[in-house]
Amino acid sequence: MRESLVAAAFQLFVERGYEQTTVDDIVALAGVGRRSFFRYFPSKEDVVFPDHEGCLTRMTAFLDESGPGHEPVERVCDAARLVLRMYAENPAFSVQRYRLTRKVPGLRTYELSVVWRYERALADYLRGRFSGRPDGTLRADVIAAAVVAAHNNGLRSWLRSDGRGDASAEVDHALAHVLGIFGPERATDGPTRGPGAGGDDDVVVVVSRRGAPLWRVVQELETTLGRDPA
Amino acid sequence: MRESLVAAAFQLFVERGYEQTTVDDIVALAGVGRRSFFRYFPSKEDVVFPDHEGCLTRMTAFLDESGPGHEPVERVCDAARLVLRMYAENPAFSVQRYRLTRKVPGLRTYELSVVWRYERALADYLRGRFSGRPDGTLRADVIAAAVVAAHNNGLRSWLRSDGRGDASAEVDHALAHVLGIFGPERATDGPTRGPGAGGDDDVVVVVSRRGAPLWRVVQELETTLGRDPA
Repeated sequence: MRESLVAAAFQLFVERGYEQTTVDDIVALAGVGRRSFFRYFPSKEDVVFPDHEGCLTRMTAFLDESGPGHEPVERVCDAARLVLRMYAENPAFSVQRYRLTRKVPGLRTYELSVVWRYERALADYLRGRFSGRPDGTLRADVIAAAVVAAHNNGLRSWLRSDGRGDASAEVDHALAHVLGIFGPERATDGPTRGPGAGGDDDVVVVVSRRGAPLWRVVQELETTLGRDPA
Repeated sequence: MRESLVAAAFQLFVERGYEQTTVDDIVALAGVGRRSFFRYFPSKEDVVFPDHEGCLTRMTAFLDESGPGHEPVERVCDAARLVLRMYAENPAFSVQRYRLTRKVPGLRTYELSVVWRYERALADYLRGRFSGRPDGTLRADVIAAAVVAAHNNGLRSWLRSDGRGDASAEVDHALAHVLGIFGPERATDGPTRGPGAGGDDDVVVVVSRRGAPLWRVVQELETTLGRDPA
């Protein structure tokens, strides 16, 4: 029933245009009553995005299941991939909707509000993980926005190619870019900083003014590494 | 006329609520006709955000005036500050609108579409500056999103304090965070990198695996700095 309403709606949107299609037209083609439509969809706009509520629920559950061992930026990248998966499951439908959303400003606005809810879910999780850190909420908001922007850059690139090509590869590349900037191997929030836990694969970042004498820089390195020059 | 319509609208929104106020109520209080209202504002929603169109125009002009000497990330931060200035010029009005926008979902959606237009303006400028670079559009989109998120984090923090405190200081701090990540003084796209031009205030960033022997790190530093240990 739900699927046939979505199918009927999209058939009419493509044939007549979104604005020219009424809920009555949709239910007539689907062969059901108006009440059935509104049982599934609060409005005509909602039938365009039938899966976002479910995806938001899955994303929130996924983030809620996170443990302290999950690297937070990697975790929100994985959460963003749930959105990609929803799009990639049905390429033809996703491409059709992408074209429709470009043409109808009201749908574009609707989509922005959905994207904003995904971004808030990611930011809320990161705020929790960064709580107590200086600029924790700021960092959380910036990373959530960066992850969403990167995900959407990869997703749109795939949608513009009419769903040909590898959606996962596009999005993975974009998310790797963000991980390279914010991920565990980069320190970006202090003048000098070593990572918390020290395996051999950890990365040490030293930031220093070019004018500083080199012995001061080496001293700083020694302190960070906690050992004598080798 | 325009200002008195905005004043009348907000007086009624606060007294009766946004949904309960009609355009007829607004024009009656302002003492003008309906046609005058629609000459200035396409809809009731637009009267809530009377200055964004002007601000978008200023932002686009500001970015269009940029020269090749402008550091791109600093430039988009300065462009974002135009939005802050608009809010900070009239704290009481901005705080009132912030409260209203929290309560009325339709206004929140409207605001998201405005924020999206700011973000696109910043991203379009950065795409131009980064064109030809690997991942230029991706980097542009990510930085634009990060700048907008940081700006809004600072702005909202000021709005939540009821417009007390220093809006510029909040936003400057947030934008400095983003500049620290993406700005010219941080290397984020290579394992080891020195800045292009070398004044004494330049910053040198060395990223190294913790397991690397210190003499290798010092050698790397010497190469980057182009001089012997002091």
